[in-house]
Amino acid sequence: MSRRAEIIRRATEVFERQGVNRTSFEDIAQAVGIKREAIYYYFKSRAELLLEVILPQSVALLNNIRLIQRTQLSSREKLHEAIRNHLDSFNPNYLEMSVALREDHFFGGDDRLTELRLTWQNYDRVWSELIAEGQAVGEFRPDLDPKMVAYGILGMCNWVTRWYHPGKDVTISDLIETYFTMIADGITGGIGTGPDIPGD
Amino acid sequence: MSRRAEIIRRATEVFERQGVNRTSFEDIAQAVGIKREAIYYYFKSRAELLLEVILPQSVALLNNIRLIQRTQLSSREKLHEAIRNHLDSFNPNYLEMSVALREDHFFGGDDRLTELRLTWQNYDRVWSELIAEGQAVGEFRPDLDPKMVAYGILGMCNWVTRWYHPGKDVTISDLIETYFTMIADGITGGIGTGPDIPGD
Repeated sequence: MSRRAEIIRRATEVFERQGVNRTSFEDIAQAVGIKREAIYYYFKSRAELLLEVILPQSVALLNNIRLIQRTQLSSREKLHEAIRNHLDSFNPNYLEMSVALREDHFFGGDDRLTELRLTWQNYDRVWSELIAEGQAVGEFRPDLDPKMVAYGILGMCNWVTRWYHPGKDVTISDLIETYFTMIADGITGGIGTGPDIPGD
Repeated sequence: MSRRAEIIRRATEVFERQGVNRTSFEDIAQAVGIKREAIYYYFKSRAELLLEVILPQSVALLNNIRLIQRTQLSSREKLHEAIRNHLDSFNPNYLEMSVALREDHFFGGDDRLTELRLTWQNYDRVWSELIAEGQAVGEFRPDLDPKMVAYGILGMCNWVTRWYHPGKDVTISDLIETYFTMIADGITGGIGTGPDIPGD
């Protein structure tokens, strides 16, 4: 790993563990085992380093959901793919997603974070469009507000960073199928509609 | 309002605006218009003040969901009441809930926050029980993990603190009905099952 890549990796871990606002260059330098000044050679500010950690992942999420939107899949299948895209990104990049979804760095007014905010705004918008499109073609019930539905799904998925521990009992695949089923069909769905086999 | 109550109120606002970890007694004193030392007369530490802000609300949430669990309502109705209980608490106490749901204060290891953590752990547990009980009586589909379902619902509801603005377009009542419908019946629910009237 290059020195630059190592700084990004260790910064990600420290950001995730103690929060961006509680992390100094000194903390990151200690984690890498170099002097604080050496980090300034690569990164001018904490915001710049934070962007390196979370922007690539955020942009990938947006690009992928745009691809999903443009496929010929049914709206139901697009919903599944969009949930998969979102939750899968926790798999190799759990720390990055976890840091990205903390709101504490949004308290700061750094202009360099504008690109990040725009990426997430666009991502939210495509989600709302996916729901509205599904309603327009008659696959999703028309009586729900697309934006509220989109934020509901994203909330369900994003809350994962608050309780999920990679490698423990629950897998990301379990989460994808459970949350897709909940959102698509509901937790009362399918009751009484399956084959009724007396004595089975 | 008593001086003590005013400190709690202003502290809530400042915690919500800039995050607990970025808030000093000095900030709160300024918001109240008193000297920093005057706050120490009422509260020994930031953790103690934080507890005053969020513990009552958290305990009320837990007590209410326990009452809901013990009613004779159907599991579907209990689900509705539990979602209502949770989201309604954002209505008069949006700031308190918003502060309670931030994770930044959980980074600290203060023992005084143990009661708060236990309250939320119990609350999560009752939610899982509600789902499992609904599965046991055959009202909810049995193939979903109760804990994953519970965390999914809570995530959906808690994410509200990240996008919802009290008093703007969406009301808490809208949220309760939308999220209940999504969770109970899914967003594809009801499609194609209504009366099919040709030419209508």
